[in-house]
Amino acid sequence: MRLEEIASIIGAEFSGTDIKISGMNALKDATENQLSFVANSKYINDIKDSKAGVVLVDFKTKEFVGESVIALEVESPYWSMAILSKYFAPLIEDDELPFAKIGEGSKISKKAEIANGAIVGKNCTVMAHVYIGAEVVIGDNTIIYPNVTVYRDCVIGNDCIIHANSVIGSDGFGFATNKLGEHKKIYQNGNVILEDDIEIGSNSSIDRAVFGSTVLKKGVRIDNLVQVGHNCEIGEYSVMVSQSGIAGSTKLGRNVVMGGQSAAAGHLEIAPFSTFAARSGITKNIKESGKTFAGFPLMEHRKWLKLQIKIAKLLK
Amino acid sequence: MRLEEIASIIGAEFSGTDIKISGMNALKDATENQLSFVANSKYINDIKDSKAGVVLVDFKTKEFVGESVIALEVESPYWSMAILSKYFAPLIEDDELPFAKIGEGSKISKKAEIANGAIVGKNCTVMAHVYIGAEVVIGDNTIIYPNVTVYRDCVIGNDCIIHANSVIGSDGFGFATNKLGEHKKIYQNGNVILEDDIEIGSNSSIDRAVFGSTVLKKGVRIDNLVQVGHNCEIGEYSVMVSQSGIAGSTKLGRNVVMGGQSAAAGHLEIAPFSTFAARSGITKNIKESGKTFAGFPLMEHRKWLKLQIKIAKLLK
Amino acid sequence: MRLEEIASIIGAEFSGTDIKISGMNALKDATENQLSFVANSKYINDIKDSKAGVVLVDFKTKEFVGESVIALEVESPYWSMAILSKYFAPLIEDDELPFAKIGEGSKISKKAEIANGAIVGKNCTVMAHVYIGAEVVIGDNTIIYPNVTVYRDCVIGNDCIIHANSVIGSDGFGFATNKLGEHKKIYQNGNVILEDDIEIGSNSSIDRAVFGSTVLKKGVRIDNLVQVGHNCEIGEYSVMVSQSGIAGSTKLGRNVVMGGQSAAAGHLEIAPFSTFAARSGITKNIKESGKTFAGFPLMEHRKWLKLQIKIAKLLK
Repeated sequence: MRLEEIASIIGAEFSGTDIKISGMNALKDATENQLSFVANSKYINDIKDSKAGVVLVDFKTKEFVGESVIALEVESPYWSMAILSKYFAPLIEDDELPFAKIGEGSKISKKAEIANGAIVGKNCTVMAHVYIGAEVVIGDNTIIYPNVTVYRDCVIGNDCIIHANSVIGSDGFGFATNKLGEHKKIYQNGNVILEDDIEIGSNSSIDRAVFGSTVLKKGVRIDNLVQVGHNCEIGEYSVMVSQSGIAGSTKLGRNVVMGGQSAAAGHLEIAPFSTFAARSGITKNIKESGKTFAGFPLMEHRKWLKLQIKIAKLLK
Repeated sequence: MRLEEIASIIGAEFSGTDIKISGMNALKDATENQLSFVANSKYINDIKDSKAGVVLVDFKTKEFVGESVIALEVESPYWSMAILSKYFAPLIEDDELPFAKIGEGSKISKKAEIANGAIVGKNCTVMAHVYIGAEVVIGDNTIIYPNVTVYRDCVIGNDCIIHANSVIGSDGFGFATNKLGEHKKIYQNGNVILEDDIEIGSNSSIDRAVFGSTVLKKGVRIDNLVQVGHNCEIGEYSVMVSQSGIAGSTKLGRNVVMGGQSAAAGHLEIAPFSTFAARSGITKNIKESGKTFAGFPLMEHRKWLKLQIKIAKLLK
Repeated sequence: MRLEEIASIIGAEFSGTDIKISGMNALKDATENQLSFVANSKYINDIKDSKAGVVLVDFKTKEFVGESVIALEVESPYWSMAILSKYFAPLIEDDELPFAKIGEGSKISKKAEIANGAIVGKNCTVMAHVYIGAEVVIGDNTIIYPNVTVYRDCVIGNDCIIHANSVIGSDGFGFATNKLGEHKKIYQNGNVILEDDIEIGSNSSIDRAVFGSTVLKKGVRIDNLVQVGHNCEIGEYSVMVSQSGIAGSTKLGRNVVMGGQSAAAGHLEIAPFSTFAARSGITKNIKESGKTFAGFPLMEHRKWLKLQIKIAKLLK
């Protein structure tokens, strides 16, 4: 997409050399032919390190943009980014892509739908009413139970099992809101990557990234009715028990255990081998590995047990 | 259905002029050719304002019914209502309805099922393994991802996006229970109305109304794994984050935000621009708009923060 | 499967008479041609009562095995059991089974998939995109809404209603973990049994048993987005409200009510007619029937109300 066209869509002034913009990305990840944005003053310091070709800024943040980067000034960079995200969204399905390729020994139900551009490895089982989107890549020996939906561009490794009615790659929950309280969708143009040996229960949702990837590393175990937000990263062999959820951009280290109905807020980093009791509510980073937590607000499990004794005494 | 037949099914005495009853409804909404019921003494005062043609009452409430209304006396009006609800339930599918009408430019997967009597607008996308029930009406430019189920009679507006494996219009959770603890299903003969510009995440459930409609107003954003009970009303641009839920007949004003895993009990009214932190539990009406709440029991968010400090001190 | 082969797979020494092993089972349920295991020293006392033909034991538990039972010694009986569970898993689908049998008056959508070996009773409705697995047995008058998945070997009674996108019989959440933190799947070779007159909401998950059956007894009512773990037993007419969940092997007596977002830990026994308020967290057995509870940690509801008053006073 031409930069002139972009400027025109969002009503920004632009008078430099017109360049081609291939996509959008976060400030820290954007490359020279990508567009990024500064929606929050706490990211001002990241501007100088950004390799983005173009950034959307407001009046106050414009001065922080270096000379090598083109700044487009708009009233609300976040809202403008939302508007533009639609233009960079790929087609949901693309009939011009080549027919799906299916590896030797794979058994695909006639009642499954494999979109053009998808690649399924060897010895896979894809059952009835499964949907595999465009340009999805699936490894070998993976089993996908009925009524699973895999959105376009997602990647699934070898030896995975995805149980019935789970969704891989649905849109992350992203939108800009204006002063009138109206929302504008931020198209989620990233994907989900499931590495090898992952098992996902039934009726779980793993959202695609807004940019980049939501990643589940080797050996992860996800139970039923679990929510994984966009851009999360789940470390090797981590476990999420039923009805737990993690909000966007949170990173779990390896062998983290999230108990039933537990949850983590967004943008957190959780040290490896952390264990969270059922119904824990995590709102802060966990830096030291190997500990066990409980409660909401969260505390070490042994403190939580003491607290319950103190609370029980209140009743006497 | 003839009133005589109705009386006979539930074993009520009836000796007046036989009339035709076209449906059932709540006391306050019922019209002269509809049947209603008084299952709880707190609704006694509503009887005199009701325009219902017939009401089911027990011995104690019979005397409150005015002369213009026919009263059918039964032991348990709620149980009798449940029995009758089945007779007013429409066919799940009706082959005699005309073939579905599909608007110009709409792309319907061959692996979707559109029941007879449904109408899909222009430029819609209906993907594989979607089910659209009888007499559903869908506006223009709406996208329905794979494996979504839309039950019969539901209405979906323009520019909506429904993500994979969500369910619009499943039966509300309604049943009568007798003294033996046995349950009798109350057929949910209402529908769901989604207005324009609504986005619903994956694996969410929006239940149909028992009578009337469950309504999501313009611009609502629903995340994944969210529960909306029967007869709820969600105001414009309100937001429900993942794994939150609202029980039956609760009304959210506009721009309400329900945090992750938060919940509201049934029959509540929540003022516009209320914000509920993650895991809030709402059990009372919120009358003043624009405030932020947390906790269960619910309190203002700043009080909740103070309380956590007090509780932390208990440990010392 | 020959015992010699089993021993060879898990690297156990074996020098007795080779026998044929037909399956795996829990210590207390295993029969003479089944294999069991002692993974936890608290089950040592159960060894002497077990009728298992073979048990996997470690060095320390071997001495407790009686003479009539063959003991295979391994380093980690649980890990070895996980390895073996795969060998006893039935085929997901089996083309050599006879075509499904459909009872008189049943209406099966052409877009449903009924696997070979399944039996559907009379006057059932099986809607589009439903999947019914191998050797599933369904009674009469049962309605299965679109996009429901029923895994192989499950049993569904008469007069049941299963709402859209729910999953009956997905694998329980079972795996062994070694010292490196790696997981090994325990194949869930049991099933789910739904007795008569059961209604299950949309997007709910009822997991199959690891051995034996997960059982929902007559008249149970399950709302939307509910989790039932493997090997649970839910008593007659019990009710689980939306977003509630029970972990593996927990038994609810009859007419138990689990409020919205409530949960029970695993391996519990809950007395009949117990009621749990919304968001209750049950971690201990409930022995006395007919009581009402709330909170997490759980307490009697009236105590919980008092506690909230005390906690509110902390703020003053």
